[in-house]
Amino acid sequence: MSIPNPPVLDAIYNRRSIREFTDMPITPDTVAEIIKAGGWAPSGLNNQPWRFVIVRDKNVREDLAKFTKYSQIINESQICIAVYLDKRVMYNDVKDHQAAGACIQNMLLATEALGLGAVWLGQILINKDQVNQLFGLDSNYDLMAVLALGHPKHRKQKSQRKEINELILNEF
Amino acid sequence: MSIPNPPVLDAIYNRRSIREFTDMPITPDTVAEIIKAGGWAPSGLNNQPWRFVIVRDKNVREDLAKFTKYSQIINESQICIAVYLDKRVMYNDVKDHQAAGACIQNMLLATEALGLGAVWLGQILINKDQVNQLFGLDSNYDLMAVLALGHPKHRKQKSQRKEINELILNEF
Repeated sequence: MSIPNPPVLDAIYNRRSIREFTDMPITPDTVAEIIKAGGWAPSGLNNQPWRFVIVRDKNVREDLAKFTKYSQIINESQICIAVYLDKRVMYNDVKDHQAAGACIQNMLLATEALGLGAVWLGQILINKDQVNQLFGLDSNYDLMAVLALGHPKHRKQKSQRKEINELILNEF
Repeated sequence: MSIPNPPVLDAIYNRRSIREFTDMPITPDTVAEIIKAGGWAPSGLNNQPWRFVIVRDKNVREDLAKFTKYSQIINESQICIAVYLDKRVMYNDVKDHQAAGACIQNMLLATEALGLGAVWLGQILINKDQVNQLFGLDSNYDLMAVLALGHPKHRKQKSQRKEINELILNEF
């Protein structure tokens, strides 16, 4: 199957958070590609602290959905990927959290490359201990985010960003 | 000028940390594009906590280089971009550090898109207070990383990653 795989700058600028999905399924190969892309993020000392839980099963997704106010998004999605850090591999909280962010951004861009949509869910972290329990994970694993994925129902999402001159503090 | 801007998955898989640069300069438009790409990262509540300091001046780069054991990379680079978080805009340490990582990854991918090379320098954070002083920034700004950029001297860098089956904790 041919995939859009647009030029990288286009993907960066055109990617939007997708919260409404069709009922078209996502293939295992597609999920593998998204996780592979996440794994190619840079990390300090190349420690690759990221780990993943894949949730395709509808009942488990319904249980997961109870831990966030964005339950409808999880229930409508075709698949969720929970992104974890393995605390035993971490070496610096700030840098490992940054690495998780780089990994998630690669996954979102890969999702865009594959013609799918996704949203980065962070509010669920308030119930991260219950999420670990649902997945049978001990406290060595620290939940970073849940991505909800599917085929976008539409692409009318708008977003906006500050002008770059608002972001530059100083120039030498 | 035409730029490579390769398909996003290719950029994700082919990007390498570049630590040796030619003396070919980087145009202001190129720097602006890289910062724009960083600014299009996702952030919690779209708070866009990232801020930037651009260091083109050779003397300031030499001063900056003194704060890391990777001084040669900074001195050989054509330009450095310091990535900051504005603490007054932050709302959650973990999520804002993740946002910084997503922003930096966008910048690294944009650098690849533009045919340039970059390396993400984190070790310099041990001297982040001195870096703030050099840039005339108060403690509202928290240094996240310094990116050193230039035209790659070569592209023979190798890297490796874990297999994805080593990264998947569970599947439902």
